[in-house]
Order: sequence, then structure tokens, then C-alpha cells
Amino acid sequence: MTRIAIPDGSPFGLANLPYGVFSAPGTTPRVGVRVADSVVDLAAVLHDDVFAHPTLNPFMAQGHERWVEVRERILDAVDGDLPSGAVHPVADVALHMPFDVGDYVDFYASEHHASNLGRLFRPDSEPLMPNWKHLPVGYHGRAGTVVPSGTPIVRPCGQRKAPDDDAPGFGPSRRLDIEAEVGFVVGTGSALGTTVPVDEFSERVFGAVLVNDWSARDIQAWEYVPLGPFLGKSFATSVSPWVVPLLALEAARVATPPQDPEPLPYLREKSPWGLDLELAVEWNGQVVSRPPYREMYWSPAQMLAHMTVNGAATRTGDLFASGTVSGPEKDQRGAFIELTWGGREPMEVAGEPRTFLMDGDEIVLSATAPAADGGRLGFGEVRNRVHPAP
Amino acid sequence: MTRIAIPDGSPFGLANLPYGVFSAPGTTPRVGVRVADSVVDLAAVLHDDVFAHPTLNPFMAQGHERWVEVRERILDAVDGDLPSGAVHPVADVALHMPFDVGDYVDFYASEHHASNLGRLFRPDSEPLMPNWKHLPVGYHGRAGTVVPSGTPIVRPCGQRKAPDDDAPGFGPSRRLDIEAEVGFVVGTGSALGTTVPVDEFSERVFGAVLVNDWSARDIQAWEYVPLGPFLGKSFATSVSPWVVPLLALEAARVATPPQDPEPLPYLREKSPWGLDLELAVEWNGQVVSRPPYREMYWSPAQMLAHMTVNGAATRTGDLFASGTVSGPEKDQRGAFIELTWGGREPMEVAGEPRTFLMDGDEIVLSATAPAADGGRLGFGEVRNRVHPAP
Repeated sequence: MTRIAIPDGSPFGLANLPYGVFSAPGTTPRVGVRVADSVVDLAAVLHDDVFAHPTLNPFMAQGHERWVEVRERILDAVDGDLPSGAVHPVADVALHMPFDVGDYVDFYASEHHASNLGRLFRPDSEPLMPNWKHLPVGYHGRAGTVVPSGTPIVRPCGQRKAPDDDAPGFGPSRRLDIEAEVGFVVGTGSALGTTVPVDEFSERVFGAVLVNDWSARDIQAWEYVPLGPFLGKSFATSVSPWVVPLLALEAARVATPPQDPEPLPYLREKSPWGLDLELAVEWNGQVVSRPPYREMYWSPAQMLAHMTVNGAATRTGDLFASGTVSGPEKDQRGAFIELTWGGREPMEVAGEPRTFLMDGDEIVLSATAPAADGGRLGFGEVRNRVHPAP
Repeated sequence: MTRIAIPDGSPFGLANLPYGVFSAPGTTPRVGVRVADSVVDLAAVLHDDVFAHPTLNPFMAQGHERWVEVRERILDAVDGDLPSGAVHPVADVALHMPFDVGDYVDFYASEHHASNLGRLFRPDSEPLMPNWKHLPVGYHGRAGTVVPSGTPIVRPCGQRKAPDDDAPGFGPSRRLDIEAEVGFVVGTGSALGTTVPVDEFSERVFGAVLVNDWSARDIQAWEYVPLGPFLGKSFATSVSPWVVPLLALEAARVATPPQDPEPLPYLREKSPWGLDLELAVEWNGQVVSRPPYREMYWSPAQMLAHMTVNGAATRTGDLFASGTVSGPEKDQRGAFIELTWGGREPMEVAGEPRTFLMDGDEIVLSATAPAADGGRLGFGEVRNRVHPAP
């Protein structure tokens, strides 16, 4: 038997307990929970085969009551002695995509980001479109290219056309960028023709991950009218390996910024709440931005209510992301196109002036949030390296 | 034993042999092939459990050589006596969603449709965007709300704002519309970071279905800038129950209309080919339009090559649809917004002037195509009725 020592201040203490899918030498991929620097094999500890699957989906589909019950059982178990074979150092395991993605939706919920992008993409118009403060603008992304942290990001090729070019050219993107986002994972789905009201959010949503919505700005700028982003985004979206349960984020709830005009009734919460996550964007080892999630205009519950108000069904594993998290300050922006103002204001990274991504660059997104024990809990990292175009 | 009699001129003769998923009294959902007015239980006839699944995906994933081989084995089997228990009258079976949808992409490949929509949605601009003749414009739709023929279509609620309104209102869509499309089903996927060149289309794509891309025009018009259609489309997309194999459509190949400017090399086919499908749109029993697929500007192979040129992975079951099929003539338009010019020119349906859909309306899409035996083969119908908003 073994007992996990949790150092003071660990971002993976008992107030966190995020879920992931891991494999260790000799085990098939299965569900684990992270405690300090260990991964606990839940099928082995809780004697429940729902955790022997290579994805969180079967467990998530069991619903909110089960999530509460299992969290309590994990707390009890981890507080005592565990079978040695059920505890693995996190450094010794492989981490996999934690859930099968149903549909992937990407919102655009930061007023700072939407305003900045509006100024950059449409310099002759109002930065925010007339609909922006009435509904959480969003679109569907490619679920089949949502990949786990660690997946090589191959620079995409595509059509791009500078304003002065007569015709589009083809080749590797010259303006490869990131978007630092927070994603929410649907645990229990909803039937076609029904809605998920704002007050059902906590019952339906299992947890949150960090999301890097890789973006080829030159491809995007040429293709996106009138039907929205497509190949400029669909080559890869990477997520953190640990799904932080919503149950662990109650101490992180904060009011959203004031919403004016008042949203339509289906988007009204008694008090709309966001999350006080502090994100960090690391570029080749240097933190270049600290986007504050508390600045997001639209709340997660408003996003889900909007996404389903037309009766669209949801499924276990649906992922919806917030859109780039950008705060009001320059060093709080979650995309390089904003940080370098369209590439016109290079920033210094490891002593070099940089704008967009070069082959070999490594990006790490991370985040912390207030935890119920008074400390801070950590999200897993999203760490990916850019590989050259084929 | 039993032998299936195929009447002369049957749209489901031996040159067609489309696949679907059915259940009969006493059988679990399984793969069948349609012959005349019968459904043949393939697991029973070919003694192969890959057909005992409730979806075509496992069979499709086996790849092109297997598709060819199985088609020959079906031809042999259906030409002779079959075990009586393996043949069901189509009227006695329930038809289900024939495949599990991976990602769903909707293109915009008809020049007539894109021009008409451009005039209607953006009357003060050029109807075609500058990118339209350089790439097949497309976007991701909601895979989780792709439903089979027969599914009730519940009128969606959402935000809509007329140009003269100060603020958006909320309620059931007042401009519920259809889009008559053709969808292509990916059989064998492609890995992340690789492309599917135009000449691999026939090897990768298993077959085609009819698609009704239900559209709430008032919701769409208000929400779609800048990230594209979202709730105006995501409430339902219905597909025909029979997947017509690409192998059955060789006699239907026709050249696409001339493409000018010449596309970039990755979109060049030796001779781009479309399909000579004649669609029909029936509104409450009256044919109101006959959209010709041969008029589509971009070819199916160009759509798939474009969708993957950035290295996006594809999966078995991915569905990509053509976008509304509209021809140059008014009675060849595949959406009511075009047929009634934004609702300003009502058409007579069963003696009544009509523009958009009313509760209780029934829409049936169907199509035929030249078959290898000199006759015409049929696609299954997409038949759905509009139900009132909740």
C-alpha cells in the first residue's frame, strides 16, 4: 500500500482532483485522477469498470449525482492508503485525449478580443458587430481535429491573399497564431427539440479544460466571408489532459462584467457568473501574456443556453470553448495577432523580435484558479510544438 | 427461399444497390441493401457480422476494395434465391440513421445559389465574395443534429431582428426554409497532417445521400457576422436513409461547368466531374423545384481536397454536403428564400400563396441519376414535417 504525499501549495491537491485518461506500462488507457505528482487508477481503486474505458465519456454520461458521489469516494480513498499498483508517478504515464469529442463549438465571448479582432480584420467598420452584445457569437469547429497536449502542430498550407495581391497564392501559413481559451465539456446531453436553460448548466457540464485554438490568420482572413472560419482553424485544436471538474471550481466563481444591454430572458441568470482563472501563455519558455478569464463578457451558462435555445441536441463529450481570453491590458491578450497588433508591433521573445509562430516554437498554456481550500488549483498544461509544413 | 422481382424501370434495380440501416420486427438495427421494394439483410445473406452493426461505419472503414467485393457478392446473391427471412418489404421495416456522423461540413458550391443569397443578404455589395471562385467556401455544421428522414422538424426559436427594429426579439423563426443538397460520406479517413488529393476522392468516399439543410433565415441573418451560420442551421439537418454507393454513380458523372479562373494546383483535376443528379423538391405534395446537380461549380473531389489541404484529418462517417443545389432557372432553385426572392414573391402551393414554411408542412426531397444499365437510379427520399415551436 502507498499513501500520496501532497506538498503544501500543490496545484493538484484534494480540492482539485481532475480526471484524465492515462496509460502506464502494462495498462490499457483508462481513467485516472491526478493528485499531486501522482495519477490514481480509478478502476483499480474504486473497483468500477466505467473507469476502465479509454475515455471519460461513459462516466460523464452517468450524470451529476454520480459525479458528486465519485468525487467523495475519491476524496476518501486518496486520504488513506492506496494499492501501490494503482498509483503511478505522472512522469511515468502517457496522457491521452481525455474524452471523445461530440460537437465542438467555439465562442467569441471576450469583448476585448472581439473588439481587437474587429479593428484588425475590418479596420473601416465598428469593431463590434451589432449582434455581439445581444448573443454569444459562436460557430462550429472541427471535432475530429481536437487533439491532446503534446500533439505536434504541423504548420498548415492553404490559400492566402494579401490585400495588394491580384490573386491568392498557396503555401504554408505565414501567420500561424494561437488562441488561449477555456473549454467546457458536456457531461449529460439534451434531446433534440429541447433547451438547456441557464440554471441547468452546473448539472449538465462536467468540467473544464484549457484549449489552444491554433489559427492560421492569413488563411482565415481570405476564406472567412461569408460563412466563417474553416481551414484557418480546422487543422488542430489542442486541449489539456486533465478535465477539472466543475465541482472543483465553485470557489473560482466571480460575477461577469456588467452586461449592457440586459440580455433577452433566455440568457438572464440571477447573477451571471464567470470563473476567476488566471491563464498564462508561455512562448519558448517565456510568459508573454496572462489572460484573465474573469473579464469574459458572456458566462459559460449563457453560452450553453444560447447553443441549445433553438432545440439543438447536445451529447456527452460536446466541447464548447470560450473563444480567446483577452483582458483590457496589452499583456493580457490571448493571441499573438492581438499581442503584436497584426504583426506590426513585434514583441521580444528570448531576445528576438517576434510576431507569429516559427517552426520549432513551443507554446504552453496553463492556468490556476482559487480552490475551496483557500489555495489555488491548477489546470493541466497544453503544450505543443510547431512542426514545419510537409 | 425467395427471389426479388425487379420491375422494369425500378429506381432501385441492380445498378443501384444503396445501403441503409433498418430494423424489422424481431431484428436489431442492421445494415440492409435496397432492391426494388425489398430490403435485404446483409448479415444474414453474406454471413458477415460487419453488417450486424446498427451503422454502416464498420463496413465503410474496411475500404474501397471491400466495397467493390461486397457489391459483387450482393449482385450475385440478389440475382438468385435468398433465404426468405433475409428479405423484408421496405414498407414493413423501420429505417434509421445509416451512419454515425463524424464531422459535418457544409459547402456553398452552387454559383447560382451563392449569387442569389449574396443579393438577398448583402444587397449593397457584389453578390459573390472575392474568394468564391478561388476556393469551395464551406463551414462546419452540427454533426449531432444530423437526423434521418422522418424525424419531426421542430420550428426553432431564436433571436431575430428586422432591419428596422431597434433591438432583437425572441421567438419562433418566421422564415423557416429548406436547402436541397447532396451529401458525401467519407468511408476511409485520413490522418492528421495529411491531405486527400483530388484523385483520391473515389477511393475515400463511400457514397452519397440527399440532405435537407433546414435553415431559419431570420435567425441566420442576425447571427451570422462575422463567424458564419450557427443556430440558424444547427437545429436539424436531415438525410435520406439510403446511401447510394459512389460505385453506382459512375454513369452519372458529368463535367462541371467551366471554372474560370483556373483553380490553384491542389484543386485541379484532369477533368473535374460532377454528377448529373436531378433533384426534386416537393412541398405538401407539389413539386416546386427541380434543382440540377450538374450545374454545381465546384466538384465533390475539389471539396474534399480543399477540406483537407491544411492537414485536417477525416474520419469514417464524416459528411460533407454540397450546399444548396440551385440551377440558373427560377424553378431550379433549391431553397424557398431564392424561390420566393426573400419572401417578396410568394409562390402558389396547393392553391395558396406561400413564402416560408408553416407548421404542418411536409417537405420531400428526391433525386434520380443515370445508371449503368441505361435506366435511372433513385436516391431515397428525405421526408420531414414541420412541427410547431415548443
